[in-house]
Amino acid sequence: MTDDRRRSFWAWGWADKLPDDAERRELKTRIESMLGFPERPLLDYPTLDDVAMPDSRLDPPLDCCTTDTRERALHTYGRGYRDLVRGFHGDFGSAPDAVALAETEADVEDVLAWATEHDVAVVPFGGGTSVVGGVECGGDGYTGVVSLDLRGLNEVLEVDTTSRAARIQGGATGPEIQAQLADHGLQLRHYPQSYEFSTFGGWVATRAGGHFATRYTHIDDFVESVRAVTPSGTLETRRLPASGAGPDPNRFLLGSEGAFGVVTEGWARVQPRPPHRSRATVRFDDYWDAVEATREIAQARLQPANCRLLNAEEAMLNELAFDGSHLLLLGFESTDAPGVPKESLSRALAIAEDHGGTWDEATHEDREEEQAERDGEEGEWRASFIEAPYMFNALVSMGVLVDTFETAVTWDRFPDLHRALQDTVIEAMRETCGAGFLSCRFTHVYEDGPAPYYTLLAPAEVGNELEQWRAIKQAASDTLDDHGATITHHHAVGRVHREHYHREVPDGYLDALRSMKRTLDPAGIMNPGALL
Amino acid sequence: MTDDRRRSFWAWGWADKLPDDAERRELKTRIESMLGFPERPLLDYPTLDDVAMPDSRLDPPLDCCTTDTRERALHTYGRGYRDLVRGFHGDFGSAPDAVALAETEADVEDVLAWATEHDVAVVPFGGGTSVVGGVECGGDGYTGVVSLDLRGLNEVLEVDTTSRAARIQGGATGPEIQAQLADHGLQLRHYPQSYEFSTFGGWVATRAGGHFATRYTHIDDFVESVRAVTPSGTLETRRLPASGAGPDPNRFLLGSEGAFGVVTEGWARVQPRPPHRSRATVRFDDYWDAVEATREIAQARLQPANCRLLNAEEAMLNELAFDGSHLLLLGFESTDAPGVPKESLSRALAIAEDHGGTWDEATHEDREEEQAERDGEEGEWRASFIEAPYMFNALVSMGVLVDTFETAVTWDRFPDLHRALQDTVIEAMRETCGAGFLSCRFTHVYEDGPAPYYTLLAPAEVGNELEQWRAIKQAASDTLDDHGATITHHHAVGRVHREHYHREVPDGYLDALRSMKRTLDPAGIMNPGALL
Repeated sequence: MTDDRRRSFWAWGWADKLPDDAERRELKTRIESMLGFPERPLLDYPTLDDVAMPDSRLDPPLDCCTTDTRERALHTYGRGYRDLVRGFHGDFGSAPDAVALAETEADVEDVLAWATEHDVAVVPFGGGTSVVGGVECGGDGYTGVVSLDLRGLNEVLEVDTTSRAARIQGGATGPEIQAQLADHGLQLRHYPQSYEFSTFGGWVATRAGGHFATRYTHIDDFVESVRAVTPSGTLETRRLPASGAGPDPNRFLLGSEGAFGVVTEGWARVQPRPPHRSRATVRFDDYWDAVEATREIAQARLQPANCRLLNAEEAMLNELAFDGSHLLLLGFESTDAPGVPKESLSRALAIAEDHGGTWDEATHEDREEEQAERDGEEGEWRASFIEAPYMFNALVSMGVLVDTFETAVTWDRFPDLHRALQDTVIEAMRETCGAGFLSCRFTHVYEDGPAPYYTLLAPAEVGNELEQWRAIKQAASDTLDDHGATITHHHAVGRVHREHYHREVPDGYLDALRSMKRTLDPAGIMNPGALL
Repeated sequence: MTDDRRRSFWAWGWADKLPDDAERRELKTRIESMLGFPERPLLDYPTLDDVAMPDSRLDPPLDCCTTDTRERALHTYGRGYRDLVRGFHGDFGSAPDAVALAETEADVEDVLAWATEHDVAVVPFGGGTSVVGGVECGGDGYTGVVSLDLRGLNEVLEVDTTSRAARIQGGATGPEIQAQLADHGLQLRHYPQSYEFSTFGGWVATRAGGHFATRYTHIDDFVESVRAVTPSGTLETRRLPASGAGPDPNRFLLGSEGAFGVVTEGWARVQPRPPHRSRATVRFDDYWDAVEATREIAQARLQPANCRLLNAEEAMLNELAFDGSHLLLLGFESTDAPGVPKESLSRALAIAEDHGGTWDEATHEDREEEQAERDGEEGEWRASFIEAPYMFNALVSMGVLVDTFETAVTWDRFPDLHRALQDTVIEAMRETCGAGFLSCRFTHVYEDGPAPYYTLLAPAEVGNELEQWRAIKQAASDTLDDHGATITHHHAVGRVHREHYHREVPDGYLDALRSMKRTLDPAGIMNPGALL
């Protein structure tokens, strides 16, 4: 965040990118006509004057800490639907008492030491893009809450071009990492939808998923080592390409969601941009044919960079098809073997054809220029993927309930799960909102199952949105659990998914994690209520 | 183990495959001439009458338990050099007091309950192929030791052909799994060198590494879910293709080495045999050119199934080259896209050529028959890979110290590490044994570093082998640690690597693991002394 460009204190993203009135009117018309929702209102965005929050209970004697209202508001919530709704209505009831803007690892240590001593809850903020209540903490039972922001630790400290790895500070955002690695002709190529704002430390702490459909996409796969500050001290794993020595020490920090400590830096695997790309968009008349084709492509181990199956609703929502066809966006890439993506796409298309898929043409590129990133249907998809959350801001301002949830499930269970979700979630929307729309795409595919990602839209009753959202979310989460799917493939647990996470994993494992936490965070100050 | 074919009570593998006198004489001549060692003795193999072990301190009132001498001897050690030496000399001083031959999960629960009550240490045996003291437990501070063998739990219980996954019992060995999956046209394709005897549960507990150089080789990548019996109860993770919910629960059992509990079953990803294969053997005059070529191939992300760089000594030892050239064995495979391995090999060879590599011909196969597995240089390599440990039995009987150690390290650190190992390990062998031979191959390659695997041979003083071994092992392990390499890439920690493992991982992590253990195993009976 620079001085001349500010993030919105309540909405997703940059304040100057909030959809304006013309854009909002267009969106409103589109939603009403496309989804058949009753006429929606057009409400004003809030200003800082609308913010209602309790007085701060803390005055930490640390230079890095502030109790400034705008910072407290910005750090109150993540950016899920329920966060946007509360922010929109000026409800900042669970604002942190103070915000620590750490510039150094020593600042982080100081905050944790002070918080331990004074029984203050510490919430690592990352980029504040959580959609699962990962950074919101009421602080019940504590003397107060400090939101810990590592935005000052945003450097790529070292690049090992021989091993292709970089040492990155926890507070560095996607674009900050990209810019610093560009000097070395390298990229991290980890593109979560929150890429513009989310941080390396946040990715590690939440096991972030990237944009690509298969390997080299999850942060888990990029992490070589992690350094974290815990209330019991600083720990750093050894930089290794692999090891079979005991349970992987990186894996206990990956997904720890700030419950053990704060990720201050780590080594990550980096790579040059792959100039060789082959892609095609395949249309299917029948969804289950498309699913079978996708399964076979995944099981052929062709490792597509993109293998995004959009059902008819999702294709319509993204304005890619309006004729009821389902789309499979296929993309393959290679650093320096142009023949491999060509051969892989050719084989994938043959599989798609066997299942009734048709396509106009396959595109092959061998371009060095950065521009290639942005070209073509896949490039457009990527751009709209990063921009999509800005639309959510506008939807909230017109009384449209909008949310996404995602999961992973084995192929044998997917058909029943999908049908059940279409029943229960649409039924819950009808019951609470009178209407509802649900679409699905696969964000990732594995040999043993897909990661389906659902988007839901419903006409909300302004002022009653949270209650409506809760009923719909409960229906979705219960259905996932009933069908043996995970509560989250890459959105993390936070506070929103906690109940279902505890149903999903064995009790003995939860007990073991709690023991770990007691050892690393004896006073229990780290992000209480998230995960555990 | 069937009644008509028995495993040697002291040596690697089947008793009927111990090298006979003619084979031993040939080996002895070869070692003496090829390595220039002084004349070696030819000592008789031990019989059960030579076994010296203390009387059993236990008489467990459980049907599955036995105190039979042969079983106790068989379960005393793993099969590393120090195990073979002690077995060869009839020293079974740390024999378990009883062996539990579990037939059901209930048997496992009974053993753990009884052991907890009576303060008896329990050592999960797996296939007993540990080379790091993973299954040897003196039992100091306990009333006795029970070795827990799951050989009766050897079934593939379920196969999901849609998702390509199978539910496998913990005691099933490689060939047992292979035979049962064959009915479904599927394979696990996890080939550790111990494949003939090691078990699914043992692989999970030790994070076993397979034969292939890149992806789809480590057991970590195949595991979908795990079920384990701990003294605090049974826990089972959910079957999922992926999840971002908290630290991966499978990963805390992967590598736990029996310290938390016993892996009784799990779901693993399976696959059909890939019929399309392309391969070539590249020769290099200069080792560092070969290393550079290998690094570039790994970083081109071509994902070779084989990328085995043998230095000149290793090529000679394996009788593949005697002219001082270094060999890079390259292999690519695909389930159903013949063009992909061809294109990948072609690109890899172009990289090799840039670094001075030469080769006779590239081979491409598209064969459905199982026979293809055994053909060609790679097939020969595989057969000799599985057979190699039998030779160790013979070497022990002729006073040859033989051991292997392996690691992983980033590319930038490999040259210094490799040179240092050649100095310190050869020096240690010369000092303790008067001579020594060290060879190296890469077993696995990653974008950020190789996994080098070293074989050492030295003329031992019969009766003094363990002391000599200890000095050499210490030199090797210290050098790995000094150079930031891991103490083990796939041989696990056990008791042999414990000291260096504790140096390698952060103290805070060890404390956290110990907390986990206290929660799952409050009486501390599970494999004490291994890992933690």
